[in-house]
Amino acid sequence: MSEADAYPITSRNRVRRRYERGHYDRATVHEILDTAMVCHVAYVIDGQPFCTPTSFWREGDRLYWHGSSASRMVRALSEGLRVCLTVTHLDAIVLARSGFHHSVNYRSVMAYGEAHAITDPKAKLAAMDAFIDRFYPGRAAILRPATDQEIKSVQILEMEIEDAAAKIRSTGVSDDEEDYALPIWCAVLPLHTTIGEAEPCPRLVSGTTAESGGMASYTPGRNFDDAILETYRKMYPDRT
Amino acid sequence: MSEADAYPITSRNRVRRRYERGHYDRATVHEILDTAMVCHVAYVIDGQPFCTPTSFWREGDRLYWHGSSASRMVRALSEGLRVCLTVTHLDAIVLARSGFHHSVNYRSVMAYGEAHAITDPKAKLAAMDAFIDRFYPGRAAILRPATDQEIKSVQILEMEIEDAAAKIRSTGVSDDEEDYALPIWCAVLPLHTTIGEAEPCPRLVSGTTAESGGMASYTPGRNFDDAILETYRKMYPDRT
Repeated sequence: MSEADAYPITSRNRVRRRYERGHYDRATVHEILDTAMVCHVAYVIDGQPFCTPTSFWREGDRLYWHGSSASRMVRALSEGLRVCLTVTHLDAIVLARSGFHHSVNYRSVMAYGEAHAITDPKAKLAAMDAFIDRFYPGRAAILRPATDQEIKSVQILEMEIEDAAAKIRSTGVSDDEEDYALPIWCAVLPLHTTIGEAEPCPRLVSGTTAESGGMASYTPGRNFDDAILETYRKMYPDRT
Repeated sequence: MSEADAYPITSRNRVRRRYERGHYDRATVHEILDTAMVCHVAYVIDGQPFCTPTSFWREGDRLYWHGSSASRMVRALSEGLRVCLTVTHLDAIVLARSGFHHSVNYRSVMAYGEAHAITDPKAKLAAMDAFIDRFYPGRAAILRPATDQEIKSVQILEMEIEDAAAKIRSTGVSDDEEDYALPIWCAVLPLHTTIGEAEPCPRLVSGTTAESGGMASYTPGRNFDDAILETYRKMYPDRT
């Protein structure tokens, strides 16, 4: 792997506990990000940390999310806001024969950088469309266009990833060797997040179907992670 | 509702954007917390925010989670660490006829306080057992007890909730009145996280079954949120 394919390892992103679970290559970091709709953004205002959940998306080494122009995160942005943006997928519960070895399987990314608001009106409008199209490929073009008032009331935040780390646990039950002799039931319990039956808007115009509007990936029973990653790859077929 | 039943509303926890989605009563805040296994903890070290996912649980107005004694969060703890602990449940995707009104249904809590490590050895051991029993009621008693080395290598963090806010969106498609005439398919797409078939440890002692060990709530196909809340209420029947 060339240096260009991995994020630098710094004192900030280096995985300390369970370092063997750490990954710094872009392919691993990006896939975990692109499989998620929601992240948690940590930032600091006057020494107080905040942890805000929000929808987000990635383009190359940049992460984007939105905020109301009235939100405290956006008002703190004027000079750039240091951020840690985290995505976590909880994949399974992992039991053990001692409390210490109980665990969960997960895929997470912590990405660090400085967030700025997109101020150029054309770039901002393009980002607002990308936010829709990234989850629903092609949908922005069929929607009622954004009004000036809507554009004003939303801020799109942009952050170049300076460094990032993925952390993954995906193995089975892991006990101390002598504990395997204990008659305690242990297992991995997988968790699945799936898409349910759509509840159509009761005010749909007669004859309106889901066939247009970028919804093809969201079929009932489908794994949600798979749908989110598939829509990403439809929208950005050349990106990794 | 008496004052004792709600968290104080401060400049820190007051819901600004979409204030009508905000809730401060303990019953609402606690149920969202008790329905989750994993939270995101934001904290600051030398001006840098971090956002760490971790398992956690609640007892009354206190939140608990664990960390390795080697982790940066724990090493920063000596004088108390300001924290925002956030739980988010993503319940549905909500489409709309304009980009602006696309949304998600969710239940989230942001809880604020100062984290400390539990230093008293007896209290720490009790908390380590509670961490297991809160998710698997009665399981701690059947496990191989913790060793001194394990107790040393883990820290349990404790935080009194000073203030907190829940934010909930649970409604349907919501468009501007004039946009309902547009022939655009819109719906709520519910998301369900369920428990899959258990993958038993290949080294189980012959005849060992899941019947003991607090696993009764984790049946295949069960809604994960329901299982997590049910185990909480088994463990703490008198708490709200």
